[in-house]
Amino acid sequence: MQLNGIGKHSIRFLSDKASRFVPKGGVYPKGFMVGGIHCGVKKDGKSLDLAILTNTHGKSAVASAVFTTNKFKAAPVQVSSKIVKEKKGEEINSLVVNSGNANAVTGSQGMKDAQDMITVTDSALGNPTNSSLVMSTGVIGNNLPISKILSGIPQLAGGNLGNTHEDWLNCAQAICTTDTFPKLVSKSFELNGHTYTLAGLAKGAGMICPNMATLLGFFVTDAPVSASALDQILKFATDRSFNSISVDGDMSTNDTIVAIANGAAGGELIDNTASSAESFGILQREITGFAQQLAQLVVRDGEGATKFITISVKNALSYGDAKIIASSIANSSLFKTAMYGNDANWGRILCAIGYSQVSSGDSINPAKTNVSFIPSDGSSKLKLLVNGEPEVVDEKRASEILSVEDIEVEIDLGTGGGQECKFWTCDLTHEYITINGDYRS
Amino acid sequence: MQLNGIGKHSIRFLSDKASRFVPKGGVYPKGFMVGGIHCGVKKDGKSLDLAILTNTHGKSAVASAVFTTNKFKAAPVQVSSKIVKEKKGEEINSLVVNSGNANAVTGSQGMKDAQDMITVTDSALGNPTNSSLVMSTGVIGNNLPISKILSGIPQLAGGNLGNTHEDWLNCAQAICTTDTFPKLVSKSFELNGHTYTLAGLAKGAGMICPNMATLLGFFVTDAPVSASALDQILKFATDRSFNSISVDGDMSTNDTIVAIANGAAGGELIDNTASSAESFGILQREITGFAQQLAQLVVRDGEGATKFITISVKNALSYGDAKIIASSIANSSLFKTAMYGNDANWGRILCAIGYSQVSSGDSINPAKTNVSFIPSDGSSKLKLLVNGEPEVVDEKRASEILSVEDIEVEIDLGTGGGQECKFWTCDLTHEYITINGDYRS
Repeated sequence: MQLNGIGKHSIRFLSDKASRFVPKGGVYPKGFMVGGIHCGVKKDGKSLDLAILTNTHGKSAVASAVFTTNKFKAAPVQVSSKIVKEKKGEEINSLVVNSGNANAVTGSQGMKDAQDMITVTDSALGNPTNSSLVMSTGVIGNNLPISKILSGIPQLAGGNLGNTHEDWLNCAQAICTTDTFPKLVSKSFELNGHTYTLAGLAKGAGMICPNMATLLGFFVTDAPVSASALDQILKFATDRSFNSISVDGDMSTNDTIVAIANGAAGGELIDNTASSAESFGILQREITGFAQQLAQLVVRDGEGATKFITISVKNALSYGDAKIIASSIANSSLFKTAMYGNDANWGRILCAIGYSQVSSGDSINPAKTNVSFIPSDGSSKLKLLVNGEPEVVDEKRASEILSVEDIEVEIDLGTGGGQECKFWTCDLTHEYITINGDYRS
Repeated sequence: MQLNGIGKHSIRFLSDKASRFVPKGGVYPKGFMVGGIHCGVKKDGKSLDLAILTNTHGKSAVASAVFTTNKFKAAPVQVSSKIVKEKKGEEINSLVVNSGNANAVTGSQGMKDAQDMITVTDSALGNPTNSSLVMSTGVIGNNLPISKILSGIPQLAGGNLGNTHEDWLNCAQAICTTDTFPKLVSKSFELNGHTYTLAGLAKGAGMICPNMATLLGFFVTDAPVSASALDQILKFATDRSFNSISVDGDMSTNDTIVAIANGAAGGELIDNTASSAESFGILQREITGFAQQLAQLVVRDGEGATKFITISVKNALSYGDAKIIASSIANSSLFKTAMYGNDANWGRILCAIGYSQVSSGDSINPAKTNVSFIPSDGSSKLKLLVNGEPEVVDEKRASEILSVEDIEVEIDLGTGGGQECKFWTCDLTHEYITINGDYRS
């Protein structure tokens, strides 16, 4: 396994996180082949920088995608979103991804390069025109070394794709920039008497100069799903996973989440109609949980992060306002720095709840708000604020709870609304400042 | 001059900033007396912690106030906002402020304490009931040591108020928590043949445990203004000053900005009617510029800040969207950390523009967006992005521009809209993390 782009600052965490979060094996969906090679975008001459994922099942796959809402959309985002829209998610079989260069802010040449990557991939795989999507991540403002990529594609497609754990790891590695470990998860589940499998890859939290920490995520499954059902599920799952995490609150020009389903494991088509409501519900739950697992790996690899923090908002009037409140806490620099310092500072949590831009004034009632820490060892929760009144906090116990890597903050809004939301973030550390501020020195 | 609450981390900046930003003298408005004493809220037994500002002009003053929009409003905010509303800004003559305890999240006792501070101040100054406003800043979640404060008020009001530079500095010092220097500005200007004077005080950026960095600001003037005109001017000025700064994006439970005008310098009443439109415009411009000066001092004292950054957004379709874009950049951790590292990272600026939540899609056109650095020495600007295309940047020149304390980033949106906005922020530094994360250790 190649680990590329590791700077002096992240190296100390690497072996630990890689050994804890990179799986030693996996179960992979039927009818897909994947792989990654070095084609020459990354300048060290060896790090993997080109990935392909393709459907090899007899019939065409369906796809859905969620793209960045940033106004400055990179060329691959513009080209891929056009294809998904035009084809309504039907007959999309492959993904081609390069790392090391984001093909963002690259003008008309960038658009041509993105389209060429698709055309060459389709041709190398023997697929019809525009049955691939393209993604790029890395440096912005420079044109791609396109000839290297266009030579690399047939080389990778020609004999370097497979379905082993090693192939999936190579694929996950080839989309990384300065991620300190490749992010890969897989699982099987039963539905309607069939065994279906999900595999997912992601990258995030990587810093490159000049950069944004681009977030890419892919799920593939051999379950039989309609394009429309997959679209609905991906949006639901992304809302509750990749759109419920925050490393530093910035959203890149290249962020893309894609799902592909080829139906290779057989069974009845899962649609978003009344007749398959139960199957749809099960698949949605599976994909959502799976997407959360993948998104959490991005948080664990957050730049300079030493803590993995879960914000649970309960008893909210609406899911939307629960998420606005959770996000407000997760993005508070004061809160994130307090977590780094093992400081049970409920004032900062309260403050972030209070200034969150909830849509309904009834969503927050100071006199009914409760804040607690949930210990990761399963012991009873430590109450900080009960019905808006501060508790006398056992500082020693608080410090114990906060000194471990995994921290959960529970906010019970006490509205009786019953809605809830989970959000994941990391702490704000000296290491973050060093990585993002000092790396040129 | 007392300087209280200085921790080990800020001491190194203190003497420098204090000598550069604390005035050696000033011009102060007629008909006001101010002062500050130590009454015992702060535990060191000597730091100033109680301030009073009062109108001594024969007739009643008018006041306007802008309060935090945080849902968790501290008791003094609730009590003061009720008085301003009920009295429509008329006949408000005094402010009483304590530092060291924010009287926030303190239940019904907190409400009673806030009201008692007003009642005792009115009585000590011989004013009618509810002609004072109250403010508190400091620790949250603890009740005030109210008997110390209520004994301190008549002591301060009885013989410790005055109108000298020393009195104003004492007043400015007494509202500080962990500010590294007191924030005081004053100026005179001509209008309708009269000389009017403005004095302003602020505190901000202070960290105390558990804390929010409460922002308090006061302006007083001897110009004759109607309550309604003052209200309109204060809202306009606050939008463009205290609401156009960001240290860490958090908004406290206690934030309050107050303006008081007593008309002691004579002249015709300035109202927001057609007949006094010209005078109104001049006064609004004066107060806005003055408020910006004061707000900028808060940024300069930002926790751990080493850079003072001006974000100028030009050629916007609306002031509102210009401000949303400027605020998005000013609150980007990636941008703020790049400034700390003297890194000309236009990608992070572009990214923050792109994800800003502008109200109109037309406000941002990637192909017309320009980003430049404006050198603080008046030399010609360094273009980073022209009409959405990256420039080849002279890194040495960029590094020179960024290595000084004052940095200006200009974003020309190229919409032809002609609206503009300025926003001020500071960098995100190791020191910020140390102050906010490590202070318990």
